[in-house]
Amino acid sequence: MTISAGTVKELRDRTGIGMMECKKALEESNGDIEKAITILRKKGHARAKDKMERQAKEGAIGSYIHLNGKIGVLVEVNCESDFVARNEEFQELVKNICLHIAAADPQYICSEDVPQEILDEEMEIIREQFKDSGKPAEIVEKIVQGKLSKFYQEACLLDQPYIKEDKMAVNELVTAFIAKFKENVVIRRFARYELGES
Amino acid sequence: MTISAGTVKELRDRTGIGMMECKKALEESNGDIEKAITILRKKGHARAKDKMERQAKEGAIGSYIHLNGKIGVLVEVNCESDFVARNEEFQELVKNICLHIAAADPQYICSEDVPQEILDEEMEIIREQFKDSGKPAEIVEKIVQGKLSKFYQEACLLDQPYIKEDKMAVNELVTAFIAKFKENVVIRRFARYELGES
Repeated sequence: MTISAGTVKELRDRTGIGMMECKKALEESNGDIEKAITILRKKGHARAKDKMERQAKEGAIGSYIHLNGKIGVLVEVNCESDFVARNEEFQELVKNICLHIAAADPQYICSEDVPQEILDEEMEIIREQFKDSGKPAEIVEKIVQGKLSKFYQEACLLDQPYIKEDKMAVNELVTAFIAKFKENVVIRRFARYELGES
Repeated sequence: MTISAGTVKELRDRTGIGMMECKKALEESNGDIEKAITILRKKGHARAKDKMERQAKEGAIGSYIHLNGKIGVLVEVNCESDFVARNEEFQELVKNICLHIAAADPQYICSEDVPQEILDEEMEIIREQFKDSGKPAEIVEKIVQGKLSKFYQEACLLDQPYIKEDKMAVNELVTAFIAKFKENVVIRRFARYELGES
């Protein structure tokens, strides 16, 4: 079977392994890239696994250490081009998101990231508070929805009021940047460590 | 029932909620702190949950950004006293661990952190390589164990050769510090982001 140069290149890009090795693996797998990766791994190319999971995305990783090492934040913000990634305003956006996370302690990026069991727990706690209120069920349900959106504003980064300008949600801060630079911007992931928390 | 001032203080420390509220909740729970926390939460003190999970530990959070934002590291290193945490050599240890993680890309802190399914997968890949070698099973098993410890040296931070001095494992770097300062030091957690990886 003939393997196209393009297929060999794709496997090479994904695994970082030499052309000849990639070609041999593809011949063995009849041109199937996923199978070829498994073959390469079984031949001892442990690295194949790492690289294949990467994909090209631009942006920057930012960090911020607060209070002499008591709180630390790491964040990845993606954009579409290296040109925008290197722009000073983008760098500043990343820095401001770090500062915000350090201060506001979000648990999730957006409301879709909140696990169902946490939502259920929150709703049960809210309903419990109105159990003996004598209000009709549909009113209680409206209150629950209102409290839930307040929960999102406390727990979700994009819904939180931006610490430097609290009339604006973090989401709006990002959207303003997108509107200005005509390029999509996504806060992809973050970690926030507080010394000694469990 | 009389609630001791110590119990009230403990609940206050764990929840960050005012003395009187804590006392009332404890009276309601007959002095049971866990039940009192649930009572406080049901009364709408959402914050009770966060603080109660914290415990006092000293040390520092460190970070390092490499290649103009292409790689970022966040690490928490714990020690026993604030005195040691503020020591320059401890700060340098934290910094060096960050640099090491950026360069060596560990997946876990120690071998005990490797999930069983990852271990099984690795072992299967190693055994597959020696399937047709004609070697006796017990020799293959010895080779598997040897390759597995090599896997740990690649994947586990504490087993990795220290990038600045590769005859020493990261574990030994930490142990040398412990011996000098007579205080336990633990690398508690880390995050390493590489731009665009999935």
